[in-house]
Amino acid sequence: MTWKEHLHEIIYEADTPLGKAFDVILLILILLSLALVMLDSVDFINTHYHNLLHISEWVITIAFTVEYFLRILVVKKPTKYIFSFYGIIDFLATIPLYLSLILTGSGALLSLRALRLLRVFRILKLERYFGAGNFLITALKKSLPKIFIFIYTVVIVSFVAGAVMYMIEGPQHGFTSIPQSIYWTIVTLTTVGYGDIYPVTPFGQFVASIIMILGYGIIAVPTGVVTAEMTFMRKKTNTVHCRNCGENDHKSDAQYYLKCGHSL
Amino acid sequence: MTWKEHLHEIIYEADTPLGKAFDVILLILILLSLALVMLDSVDFINTHYHNLLHISEWVITIAFTVEYFLRILVVKKPTKYIFSFYGIIDFLATIPLYLSLILTGSGALLSLRALRLLRVFRILKLERYFGAGNFLITALKKSLPKIFIFIYTVVIVSFVAGAVMYMIEGPQHGFTSIPQSIYWTIVTLTTVGYGDIYPVTPFGQFVASIIMILGYGIIAVPTGVVTAEMTFMRKKTNTVHCRNCGENDHKSDAQYYLKCGHSL
Amino acid sequence: MTWKEHLHEIIYEADTPLGKAFDVILLILILLSLALVMLDSVDFINTHYHNLLHISEWVITIAFTVEYFLRILVVKKPTKYIFSFYGIIDFLATIPLYLSLILTGSGALLSLRALRLLRVFRILKLERYFGAGNFLITALKKSLPKIFIFIYTVVIVSFVAGAVMYMIEGPQHGFTSIPQSIYWTIVTLTTVGYGDIYPVTPFGQFVASIIMILGYGIIAVPTGVVTAEMTFMRKKTNTVHCRNCGENDHKSDAQYYLKCGHSL
Amino acid sequence: MTWKEHLHEIIYEADTPLGKAFDVILLILILLSLALVMLDSVDFINTHYHNLLHISEWVITIAFTVEYFLRILVVKKPTKYIFSFYGIIDFLATIPLYLSLILTGSGALLSLRALRLLRVFRILKLERYFGAGNFLITALKKSLPKIFIFIYTVVIVSFVAGAVMYMIEGPQHGFTSIPQSIYWTIVTLTTVGYGDIYPVTPFGQFVASIIMILGYGIIAVPTGVVTAEMTFMRKKTNTVHCRNCGENDHKSDAQYYLKCGHSL
Repeated sequence: MTWKEHLHEIIYEADTPLGKAFDVILLILILLSLALVMLDSVDFINTHYHNLLHISEWVITIAFTVEYFLRILVVKKPTKYIFSFYGIIDFLATIPLYLSLILTGSGALLSLRALRLLRVFRILKLERYFGAGNFLITALKKSLPKIFIFIYTVVIVSFVAGAVMYMIEGPQHGFTSIPQSIYWTIVTLTTVGYGDIYPVTPFGQFVASIIMILGYGIIAVPTGVVTAEMTFMRKKTNTVHCRNCGENDHKSDAQYYLKCGHSL
Repeated sequence: MTWKEHLHEIIYEADTPLGKAFDVILLILILLSLALVMLDSVDFINTHYHNLLHISEWVITIAFTVEYFLRILVVKKPTKYIFSFYGIIDFLATIPLYLSLILTGSGALLSLRALRLLRVFRILKLERYFGAGNFLITALKKSLPKIFIFIYTVVIVSFVAGAVMYMIEGPQHGFTSIPQSIYWTIVTLTTVGYGDIYPVTPFGQFVASIIMILGYGIIAVPTGVVTAEMTFMRKKTNTVHCRNCGENDHKSDAQYYLKCGHSL
Repeated sequence: MTWKEHLHEIIYEADTPLGKAFDVILLILILLSLALVMLDSVDFINTHYHNLLHISEWVITIAFTVEYFLRILVVKKPTKYIFSFYGIIDFLATIPLYLSLILTGSGALLSLRALRLLRVFRILKLERYFGAGNFLITALKKSLPKIFIFIYTVVIVSFVAGAVMYMIEGPQHGFTSIPQSIYWTIVTLTTVGYGDIYPVTPFGQFVASIIMILGYGIIAVPTGVVTAEMTFMRKKTNTVHCRNCGENDHKSDAQYYLKCGHSL
Repeated sequence: MTWKEHLHEIIYEADTPLGKAFDVILLILILLSLALVMLDSVDFINTHYHNLLHISEWVITIAFTVEYFLRILVVKKPTKYIFSFYGIIDFLATIPLYLSLILTGSGALLSLRALRLLRVFRILKLERYFGAGNFLITALKKSLPKIFIFIYTVVIVSFVAGAVMYMIEGPQHGFTSIPQSIYWTIVTLTTVGYGDIYPVTPFGQFVASIIMILGYGIIAVPTGVVTAEMTFMRKKTNTVHCRNCGENDHKSDAQYYLKCGHSL
């Protein structure tokens, strides 16, 4: 086993003690880097521990850089890794600090560091849950056309209700413009209800009540669509032992009659 | 092919390059007209760019007018188009500015322009999603009697709870009248919770807590009704290939036994 | 036909023109009486139109009194009517004003007038929707033990989370006592979120975030329970024409095999 | 029957009059103790009735102590009781006041008294509802992997959206740091919407609207997952009388074909 193969085992596998240690250290680094991004934005911490944060950021960036090049070095097909999903995430998680050197005042780019969160996936070996993830994604994909119609309807309702409320309440009660009123309608329809803007006139409150009840009720539509899809899929994944042929992968209620050819 | 047929192809079809170009231009015009309605209401923009907005509105209105008459001209049965769903939408989307000339101070009529949003449907050929739309509409229609009972119950609860909270909290805590209290109850039951009015006394907070938990829980009722209907419909639209007769339009689990007469 | 039978037909039936007219007048009276209760509480209206409101209230009360005694008079079994659901509603809708004469300062009793809302049921002949109503009630009844467990869990979570937040945030941030904190927890768990009390310390916001996500997620439990029950019931009410016996009241997928005795 | 057996019957059973009386007294004590914990935190009550509260707390603690030792005394296997679920609850419900004597200033420990709420379970014999409880727990357990994926997605979305909103709105509009912005995103995604922080700039309101609609819609995912699981389980628990074999415990639609071997 060459040193490349050895390193590959440590970096990409988690079966050996060294491989596990590598994963644990990397996980800690990732979580630390995320904590850094967050703490960096807190005014009190930024002013008091600026140097510490800056140094830590450099340490983590360099560690990620080293890891990134090691990954390229030890993998068999480097280009495949570089343009894979994880390869791009790794690259984007490493680059922000370097960019901030080149482009002065590009603090906005530092928010790319939030992508580091996606790196956690790799370490925790969340792939084993990907079956569950696929289930959700398939259900959502199948629900998409219906949900599209639903969102389209919500947008139209928001637009019309926003215009109506703008006329009823007017700028003196916080509904300063139609876009603002549409924003208020979405805040109300989705039952968020900040309370930064709210109807004051009795008629405005009456119309708002109708919008609220509508918003409260229409949640039933996307929920119904997704649930119906999931119920259907859930039922299909139910395996039943067939008495006649002994097979136990008759997945769907409808299909298991067909596979073994027995009437049960 | 006469010029009428030619124009008909451009306006009503999207297969030719000219037809596609017409659709794209129309879509841009519609979205522009919607943006105009919104920007018109923003105070800052209205005062600074009043003339620009006014001229743009006239340009779009004239464009829509021309398009409307062209549609009548080239269609085979003009009256059928005029009284069709899209014909009425097109008419209402065109007329507001003309009305504002005749009726001075009829700014309210300008909000009819919001109907232009419905025109987007036509261009995006959303008809292909209408199967999905019909699914939703059928499910909602079948759920209607149960949802009617539900809303009726919510209204009674709001009325009673509003009266009770009016007596507990009273005008000094913002519950200035029973209608105001009913408004608060709806804000609370639908979990919107603006915070413009809220209970202050311990007993008021206790009753409010019960209303909240009730409001939080009863969302299960419309959701359950719609979902049950959709689950039932979703199951029916599952096609299964029948082994015996080869038919594949055995739509419902219950019915496919009947169609081919085989026990499967 | 005696005058009693004649009156009975007018009051209790809606088939004759007079019976329909009676129903319409009664419906208007009920809605007027409800409007009175609400307007009575609006300060501005109460001070300016006090006499008008007071006289109207007496007119309606007398009308209801007359109607109540007529109902007793013409019905065959008066005691049965008096102690029936509608009989009690009619009585409670009539009595508040008389009580306010006897017991001075019993304004609270006037809120009993809100029960008049239930009288609307009678006129609108909502009984035809009672099938739908029964469906909902049966589904909710069957879901009750599970929902009881759910509410019990929510109460425990609210109590514990309330105590925890009281310790974290303390009286200086609005969490003045444990009952107050429990109230806040319920406001948060149910996603109402008035904003009268909210966490200020970072750790308090962190714990609050967990409570919010919990509250956002656990709505799935009552919704799931009720929906599962309704889906099950909805499926059972699906009628299928049986090919062999021609019966079409094979209500349940499970039972229709049994009724006709055919294997389908 | 020895006195130990006699006491055991009173304390652990509820069939005899004495046993029932013991249960009722214990229930009252538990509810009183809970009320004490809550009232203790209310400033007004604490200052005016401090001595009364303190004495009551001691009375209840001593009563619980006596009960705890009696339970150990009369039970056959004391260690089994001590380390059972209820044994630990009973212990933790008794100990806080003693701890506050040893550790001065350990007011925080007093919140352990909230665990007394769990004692109510024992008295109300809620075990009969445990079937329902098990149903919920099983459904939630089976939904766990999918819900884990869902929560993970919500956390990532919150982090990214929080960072984005921090850059758009900035500290001057209340988004003082990324953790604060993440807190705001969770408040918005879960549709709680306190209104302590809210977007002010038009672009911020636009992004917030998208977050709201997303938050409003994604509730469909956990609801769908749990509902699908419950619908599946609910269907399985449907018992059908089999015509051929007379058995009535054919629990699942799929399985009852198998048990009796009849084609129905």
